[in-house]
Amino acid sequence: MTQTEEKEEITGTPLVPIEKIVSLCKRRGFVYPNSEIYGGVAGIYDFGPLGVELRNNIRRFWWWSMVQTHDNVVGIEGATITHPRVWEASGHVENFVDKLVDCKKCKRRFRTDHLDPVNLEQHKCPVCGGELTSEPRVFNLLMETYLGVVEGDRMKTYLRGEACQNIYLDYDNVLKSSRMQIPFGICQIGKAYRNEVTPGNFLFRQREFEQWDLQFFVHPTEMEKWFEYWKEYRFKWYQTILNHKDRLRFHAHGKDELAHYAKQAFDIEYRTILGWQEWEGIHWRQDWDLSRHSQYSGQDLSYVDPLTKEKYIPWIVETSGGVDRTFLNLLLDAYEEEPDPTGKDPRTVLRLHPWLAPVKVAVFPLQKNKEELVSTAKAIHKDLQRYMVSQYDDVAAIGRRYRRQDEIGTPFCVTVDFQTLEDQTVTIRERDGMTQQRIAISELTMYLLERVTWK
Amino acid sequence: MTQTEEKEEITGTPLVPIEKIVSLCKRRGFVYPNSEIYGGVAGIYDFGPLGVELRNNIRRFWWWSMVQTHDNVVGIEGATITHPRVWEASGHVENFVDKLVDCKKCKRRFRTDHLDPVNLEQHKCPVCGGELTSEPRVFNLLMETYLGVVEGDRMKTYLRGEACQNIYLDYDNVLKSSRMQIPFGICQIGKAYRNEVTPGNFLFRQREFEQWDLQFFVHPTEMEKWFEYWKEYRFKWYQTILNHKDRLRFHAHGKDELAHYAKQAFDIEYRTILGWQEWEGIHWRQDWDLSRHSQYSGQDLSYVDPLTKEKYIPWIVETSGGVDRTFLNLLLDAYEEEPDPTGKDPRTVLRLHPWLAPVKVAVFPLQKNKEELVSTAKAIHKDLQRYMVSQYDDVAAIGRRYRRQDEIGTPFCVTVDFQTLEDQTVTIRERDGMTQQRIAISELTMYLLERVTWK
Repeated sequence: MTQTEEKEEITGTPLVPIEKIVSLCKRRGFVYPNSEIYGGVAGIYDFGPLGVELRNNIRRFWWWSMVQTHDNVVGIEGATITHPRVWEASGHVENFVDKLVDCKKCKRRFRTDHLDPVNLEQHKCPVCGGELTSEPRVFNLLMETYLGVVEGDRMKTYLRGEACQNIYLDYDNVLKSSRMQIPFGICQIGKAYRNEVTPGNFLFRQREFEQWDLQFFVHPTEMEKWFEYWKEYRFKWYQTILNHKDRLRFHAHGKDELAHYAKQAFDIEYRTILGWQEWEGIHWRQDWDLSRHSQYSGQDLSYVDPLTKEKYIPWIVETSGGVDRTFLNLLLDAYEEEPDPTGKDPRTVLRLHPWLAPVKVAVFPLQKNKEELVSTAKAIHKDLQRYMVSQYDDVAAIGRRYRRQDEIGTPFCVTVDFQTLEDQTVTIRERDGMTQQRIAISELTMYLLERVTWK
Repeated sequence: MTQTEEKEEITGTPLVPIEKIVSLCKRRGFVYPNSEIYGGVAGIYDFGPLGVELRNNIRRFWWWSMVQTHDNVVGIEGATITHPRVWEASGHVENFVDKLVDCKKCKRRFRTDHLDPVNLEQHKCPVCGGELTSEPRVFNLLMETYLGVVEGDRMKTYLRGEACQNIYLDYDNVLKSSRMQIPFGICQIGKAYRNEVTPGNFLFRQREFEQWDLQFFVHPTEMEKWFEYWKEYRFKWYQTILNHKDRLRFHAHGKDELAHYAKQAFDIEYRTILGWQEWEGIHWRQDWDLSRHSQYSGQDLSYVDPLTKEKYIPWIVETSGGVDRTFLNLLLDAYEEEPDPTGKDPRTVLRLHPWLAPVKVAVFPLQKNKEELVSTAKAIHKDLQRYMVSQYDDVAAIGRRYRRQDEIGTPFCVTVDFQTLEDQTVTIRERDGMTQQRIAISELTMYLLERVTWK
């Protein structure tokens, strides 16, 4: 047991079982199994009303911090279907494969890279001890589809196996149309598809998922500097939105893990009940991608420095992470069941950063049968909706309404009571500390905006 | 010639050729052909730095007005790959087809529903007069893909041909997890895929595109009321963001166009150089979708009214439009070349609504070689970036910089000049009227926020 694990047991914030999150997600409308009425499809999920708000907030914060506040970064949004040659140039048609062995006894199937080397060497099933097939079978992860409907026109292509390829494809167009000069970056958020043999662990390994990528183009002599810049920036970015900052670490790739063109590479890892898992990769891609696409397309993707006239293929720093993993990790990071100080049932609370919480504020009338309380609460709710996601709730006792909001991570609850009718103040209750204070209705919008808007 | 057409010729705002928009989009980074370095893929596009900002603004405004400000509407975001039975239940496997005939002489291919009935009847090619094949060939528009990698596990399925199916699939989960009661609606924005035989007219008919849908679930006796409500709401919504409001109209479906379950249906049409074209459909779907999915899945999707205990399959009002068509129509609506009042080159201006413009403000120092002007302008720019998309530009004369921003639709330009250094005011210049006024730096953020934030 490591020191960190010991400490966490002592401080009483144990790692959250995935099942708790799966259950919460279904019950409160964050995530549903896709096509559930037809029995579902393994590794594919839909996002419910709260899930889509959380995802949108996560995406917007990433976009704002990566693109809108960096003068040397722009965004694109590319299609998920591209020309099939793209995947030959990228190496995916040849190398994007899983190797599988089967247990002859229990019929379970394993990826060789997920097996303990001992099991693989001894050809013994890690579950039942049966014999494993000796020659791994090789399967490509790209999902295929077909464009054109008539024989002869019909072209086999692929759903993109990684989103970043569009950035290389559009690099030259961006350069010509955006007035960017090296060093500069291109960002994208978008879906990718992988025919995973073993999808699982809820959102962690899906067949349809979403990535966010930065590809930052630099002069080779500046590679080291920018690699460091983005490595630190991305680590701090994740720290900012986490409660358990000590569950975040770098994993430096060893020599055997590095691509042949990479001088170094780091994963940002997060520790959950599944162990330390990759969240984002910071990659030294050198001139690999633009050189390959130059070679395969016949278009020279060299850059000519406008001042020095030096001509070269730019090198690339990549930061590539998963929107779905962020979504899942944030829920695992935020979920907590704590004893109720008033001695009732334990309180389930999602300590999501107020920037990212799907609902920013809930507005309650103290009683639903007092017309003046109800109309005042509804008016406040309507006004707040112009600026943020607000929920109105008048069902059950105030305590129950607080609990409902705690469980979905709503950072603030506002209650309209009899004092409100006298002095135009409301009670504002904060999720984490459960502290309450009175505030003038006229100051409410700015008070909340200040706390739910990123900066 | 209709009265409207006459009037438009008189008022001097002619319909904009698509080519002008294609050219602007490529030159300024709104839209690029996908995989262009590999020769492109017909009917598939990527969005560049300005395009993705415009798209995001369009989506956010739709989401805010449809979901976040309607207490009886929630959102979802479903996967693009679903269980294949979904497309049997929806009727797409059987009926989502194009019928094609070929010209035996010039080899051109035509969709029978795009041909003049006279040509079809006489089997004469409308282009060369040659003979058309007599029996149309039938092609399904669904794009197929395969899940699972091992023989026996491999399942043929489809990329969704319309996004709305996820809403029906998730309807029951939303009902159980969101505390909604009928009447209520579910919204979604997401991609759909169609193997179009004749993609074309730029973004108008693509193979990969994006839809926005509302499915609003009602008691049958309230169908008429809600159909009217959403029909009017959506029409006004489009009017709000258009300059040429007279180019918008309803097209009522005739008896021969109506689905068998539909009492009525309307297209919201917009007039461009291509003529009147469908932008959004308002559909009376009755109980068709939930009944079919109940039947095919074996899950009873009936609703039980919590008060009356009445059990019924809800009826549905659908409003379904295209994000890409909105993007294209807004550019066609906003584009204008006008004589320069100062007698220089014509001015190209995109009169996009300030809510939707990709760049909200540009900040200029009057001269780039005056350190104080530059540092003040950069500080203002950095401050504004916290709240909105801002561009800093110090290249070329002020007039040229204005033109660059006019062409991409930036509603406001701010210039830091020598007076700024004395009294802390800047010049703010408005895109459409080209009027200028001085404003205190301390008031700038609020002045702009008030104008670029929807309400």
